Amino acid sequence: MARQDARDRPLRLGVLGCGNVGAKFVELVDTEAEAIARRTGIELAVTRIAVRDPDKARPSSLDPASLSKRLTTDAAAVVTDPEVDLVVELIGGIEPAEELVLQALGAGKPVVSGNKELLASSGGELLAAAEAAGVDLLFEASVAGAIPLVRLLTESLAGERIVRLMGIVNGTTNYMLTRMSEEGLSYEEALAEAQALGYAEADPTADVEGFDAAAKAAILAGIAFDADVVASDVYREGITAIGPDDIAFAHRLGYEVKLLAVAERSVDQASEASETGRSGPPSVSVRVHPAMVPRDHPLASVRGSFNAVFLDGAAAGELMVYGRGAGGLPTASAVLGDVIDAAHHLREGSRSRSARRRAPDLRPMAVLRAQYYLSVDVADRPGVLAAVASVFGENDVSIRSMEQIGLAGEARLVFLTHTALEADMQATIAGLGRLEAVERVGCMLRVLGPEAGP
Amino acid sequence: MARQDARDRPLRLGVLGCGNVGAKFVELVDTEAEAIARRTGIELAVTRIAVRDPDKARPSSLDPASLSKRLTTDAAAVVTDPEVDLVVELIGGIEPAEELVLQALGAGKPVVSGNKELLASSGGELLAAAEAAGVDLLFEASVAGAIPLVRLLTESLAGERIVRLMGIVNGTTNYMLTRMSEEGLSYEEALAEAQALGYAEADPTADVEGFDAAAKAAILAGIAFDADVVASDVYREGITAIGPDDIAFAHRLGYEVKLLAVAERSVDQASEASETGRSGPPSVSVRVHPAMVPRDHPLASVRGSFNAVFLDGAAAGELMVYGRGAGGLPTASAVLGDVIDAAHHLREGSRSRSARRRAPDLRPMAVLRAQYYLSVDVADRPGVLAAVASVFGENDVSIRSMEQIGLAGEARLVFLTHTALEADMQATIAGLGRLEAVERVGCMLRVLGPEAGP
Repeated sequence: MARQDARDRPLRLGVLGCGNVGAKFVELVDTEAEAIARRTGIELAVTRIAVRDPDKARPSSLDPASLSKRLTTDAAAVVTDPEVDLVVELIGGIEPAEELVLQALGAGKPVVSGNKELLASSGGELLAAAEAAGVDLLFEASVAGAIPLVRLLTESLAGERIVRLMGIVNGTTNYMLTRMSEEGLSYEEALAEAQALGYAEADPTADVEGFDAAAKAAILAGIAFDADVVASDVYREGITAIGPDDIAFAHRLGYEVKLLAVAERSVDQASEASETGRSGPPSVSVRVHPAMVPRDHPLASVRGSFNAVFLDGAAAGELMVYGRGAGGLPTASAVLGDVIDAAHHLREGSRSRSARRRAPDLRPMAVLRAQYYLSVDVADRPGVLAAVASVFGENDVSIRSMEQIGLAGEARLVFLTHTALEADMQATIAGLGRLEAVERVGCMLRVLGPEAGP
Repeated sequence: MARQDARDRPLRLGVLGCGNVGAKFVELVDTEAEAIARRTGIELAVTRIAVRDPDKARPSSLDPASLSKRLTTDAAAVVTDPEVDLVVELIGGIEPAEELVLQALGAGKPVVSGNKELLASSGGELLAAAEAAGVDLLFEASVAGAIPLVRLLTESLAGERIVRLMGIVNGTTNYMLTRMSEEGLSYEEALAEAQALGYAEADPTADVEGFDAAAKAAILAGIAFDADVVASDVYREGITAIGPDDIAFAHRLGYEVKLLAVAERSVDQASEASETGRSGPPSVSVRVHPAMVPRDHPLASVRGSFNAVFLDGAAAGELMVYGRGAGGLPTASAVLGDVIDAAHHLREGSRSRSARRRAPDLRPMAVLRAQYYLSVDVADRPGVLAAVASVFGENDVSIRSMEQIGLAGEARLVFLTHTALEADMQATIAGLGRLEAVERVGCMLRVLGPEAGP
């Protein structure tokens, strides 16, 4: 690791990708470099930019001439260029990003990445490669745009035992749920509106089925618990089954419905005061699902496309960070914070602390304990409620409250349970599906309790 | 600056002060050292603790024998002890803390401080001393307990132009205002309750008159704007004039009343895209006063003794951090985060980036523009409203709405103005005070607009 004498000349940045975030990042460095140098003593310059199509219009107010002389289509040449000091990877997706990041690290260059897919699939390997090369791999922008979660967890809370982390990390679904909650829109109406505004894609699967949130949950769990969690480890449910009735019922009981990404330690490890049980692999549950959040909980007031992550630390107590989870400029701002950090380290010949990641002991969903909300459409005739209620009882799920909403020709029953085992609740749902009088088992929501997670 | 080879032995911490925060910090290091070493590779040990009275009971579950053999009454000997690698200053107050911190820095030792008074009075000089010595001076715990504001501003947002920062940074007053808002308590009842719970002191002046918040505002403005702001630079109003009627009126209009610490750039510097005007001294307004906050603003839902800081970055957009602003254990957690950071730097032979602070151009309160709420008690007779209204008009303050609340024998008028100049509003208040029919000019609140600050 050579000490970079950035005092003599600007630190030269090679940027991979010049889309929504990349173009804003280049613009930010171009316009703010002088102010940053004055403030931090660190001079930055974007000297090379790798793109697939150099003729494509860029979403920024960059001078085309100043941009075009830095563009190249040869990304591999940028990462190995001896005149590039630091690589900023903003391509997205696994390949060729992974290969390029490994090449840059192998060449002894620090890398700043905003690539959620990459970090959620290969974060552990990439961090090990950075550690072996003795350089930084920073990825603040990969999780929740401008919200400084990664640094919060790795630095501010370096001495903290994180017990639980719950986040609203997908702006599209939070926008939709906010509109359903505040304006009474249906799921379909909310989706159409989000698509019209450009928040949701034509194929909204990644957002509404929770894939995007699951990738972010994996990255967050990785840094919170020093655990090698990948996106496919994350239990995942989306918001497609939620209807206006479900939200109206939640409101009547004082709740908002939110899609949460949750990562938590198992109860023993969270409450263990002594060292026993802590040197084994971290036992964690990582999941994404909609939940009923009490209205006086800070997460309940996160509206629209904003993101927020709420966490419980053994010593720090409750903390929440809130902000823009997406968007070119906010995300570019997070990339810039990492670049300044890495540049400082390069100049000092140092690097960020790296935690030692271990394979986690992933707790199966079946052992979760929560309160549950469930809506069930049934034939509207005598004896049906008794039959439905007995399925709950047979599976050891105790009903806390029930409400019947009349529908044409049938009835909708909505239940709230006492705390139950997930396995028992799943058996209840399966049992209800087998009842002849049950037309449809609708939306199931876990309820965020005053003390415990959902 | 010698490279500390902490891989061979634990980094030895000398702690000054063993009160509420100090005792919890020692306890945290004692119990978590092994876990921290496993996670970060950094071994920590508290080897010396300076206290005034070694026989005093400590608020922690520390083993008295293990504690007493580390205690000393000679704080100066701790900071100069060659067997102490890093000094943790948790005494509070200006002297002897300032002298001890300067001695430690002069001896080449990094210092972590949780001392709000010290940082708010001499932050600039102390940072310069740390820079000259080539070691860290970190002070995350000095502002808002466990909330990682200092690192957020100095590292995550190092490349960001902060436009405005608004915080609820005093838990005692926020607890009182929450109780007044939610339970309709009077100011006196809320204060008595806060005192009974130990949130407020017998003499509550530092909290209710805004001195505590002003010290924190000075520290925050210093790091957000690289400006040498001290507590006495901060314009300050407390919450003592706020009554149930004021809060009820705010509720009717969709607002909550909060005591805000505000630091903002002048409009030209905030919106300036080019470099012009930015190399001059930072032009900032730093103030503490109660404000009406719209109910859908994230700060409005910060309840009880929690703290939160909301900020606007030119690129990052809106961000908020929320958490425990006080308390021994949460504050100790923030101290520990800093200690791990400084220990890492010591081992690497590096240090935190330091910004270059400049004397700020402090904007006088008179040039502020805001909407205002004002309550005025008047004699209940014909013609009084016209006389009162004409005082507003003569001073160029335009009334947006007015409401009359009947009182025994007199009337209370509550006004909401359009955006006006603070100087004009102050002239209005002075003019109203001279009216024979005005019994009392009561509470004045600035109104947080949808776009601008209060």
